[in-house]
Amino acid sequence: MIGIFDSGVGGMTVARAIEQLCPQYPLLYFGDIARTPYGSKSPETIIGYSRNNTDFLLEQGAELIVIACNSASSTASDALRSHYQAPILDVITPATTRAAEVTANGRIGVIGTRATIKSGIYPQKIQEARSGTRVFSAACPLLVPLVEEGWGSRRETKMILRRYLHPLRLKQIDTLVLGCTHYPLLKHMIGPRIGKRVKLIDSSVEMAVHVRNFLDQNEQLRQQLLKTTGAENRFFVSDSTDAVQITAAKIFGRPIKLEKINV
Amino acid sequence: MIGIFDSGVGGMTVARAIEQLCPQYPLLYFGDIARTPYGSKSPETIIGYSRNNTDFLLEQGAELIVIACNSASSTASDALRSHYQAPILDVITPATTRAAEVTANGRIGVIGTRATIKSGIYPQKIQEARSGTRVFSAACPLLVPLVEEGWGSRRETKMILRRYLHPLRLKQIDTLVLGCTHYPLLKHMIGPRIGKRVKLIDSSVEMAVHVRNFLDQNEQLRQQLLKTTGAENRFFVSDSTDAVQITAAKIFGRPIKLEKINV
Repeated sequence: MIGIFDSGVGGMTVARAIEQLCPQYPLLYFGDIARTPYGSKSPETIIGYSRNNTDFLLEQGAELIVIACNSASSTASDALRSHYQAPILDVITPATTRAAEVTANGRIGVIGTRATIKSGIYPQKIQEARSGTRVFSAACPLLVPLVEEGWGSRRETKMILRRYLHPLRLKQIDTLVLGCTHYPLLKHMIGPRIGKRVKLIDSSVEMAVHVRNFLDQNEQLRQQLLKTTGAENRFFVSDSTDAVQITAAKIFGRPIKLEKINV
Repeated sequence: MIGIFDSGVGGMTVARAIEQLCPQYPLLYFGDIARTPYGSKSPETIIGYSRNNTDFLLEQGAELIVIACNSASSTASDALRSHYQAPILDVITPATTRAAEVTANGRIGVIGTRATIKSGIYPQKIQEARSGTRVFSAACPLLVPLVEEGWGSRRETKMILRRYLHPLRLKQIDTLVLGCTHYPLLKHMIGPRIGKRVKLIDSSVEMAVHVRNFLDQNEQLRQQLLKTTGAENRFFVSDSTDAVQITAAKIFGRPIKLEKINV
């Protein structure tokens, strides 16, 4: 099965996108709600948690690991790759590759949490994918709490988005990477404020496309995964509250059964 | 020594207030940054973490435990009291007692995180302290991230505060309890928006007054604590980042040495 982990519920936008694009491969999701968020924690702590999560998913039968969390992708993906045999796909590479492909003027914006932006991983990977591009980053740490509060369409959120996005508009970007799994839920607010001509790169959708391509190129693993076709997708969490249930249902458009495990 | 724990750095406003009011008693602080915040987690998880934190402080020599975290106070203080011999003081009781004392019209507002407000603990304790009062609560979940972002004085914060406080103004409260350890850092913004005539109850300050009174009434414990007078205050955290260092320094007005431990 495909194992996906995130620090919380945000990564469910990745699981949802994979489910829609690759319905033949069953999913195992783990959201580390008991220790969320990772973005404000140290690299050492994030790597430790990411190893716990990967161990759990492998024990449950995952044969491919998708890191749906930007903080864990930027901080822990190298450590995981050197430690495990199973393929480890991070949520950053597909979006940066896509951004490098679609930009016309070579000016790309990236928004994310403070930890993601501080890591510098997006500019680095975009420039690896296409040298000569210019990347402009903006940390938008209030967007996750605003989404989680259900304030996605409020006037305060518009003002805060305008403040965050204004410096990127001035840089005349033509492509904007949504470098956080919560941000797809704000697309309708981000689009009008960054400008119609700017292409939005949704890292959840790009991750799903990448999973499909990766499996198309790895026939042995693909056949292995197809053996479980028809098995139910399972969603594990290290803690559960009403708000988590509501956000999960909002992302999937249906109620999601969350199975609680201890970490 | 006096042991104080919180889910993060916010509880340092309590430590700071105790340090100022009772400088003769050395402090041990523990901030569970690696698992912060507690407010969005389940009661079972919060109780488990609170026991870990109490165990750690007792091992380090604490003889009195102050729960500086509102979520842990509302969810775990009874469980801790029935499990430990050491006195356990929660951050909620002093503020609710004070609010019941100072209100003239018996109409009291309470603001806090979603978990604190949902627990209903403030109205319950205020009414226990003085029956016949009317308590009006408002969850203000965006205030902690706004403070942690350093947006304390921004226009967006003013708008958000106005939106949060407006329903309480309409109720003509004369007393407002700041039911979250981060909110003292927003006092200058809350005062003008709730109205000059409304008395603000700072739960950190009330906690410090309560610790002093409690020790004045427990001579044996007080003598025990006085044996360590002159020992340095120590601040332990389960994780440390630049932002944590900055917030700690802001609260204390001086650099704070944080000692990292594993949980």
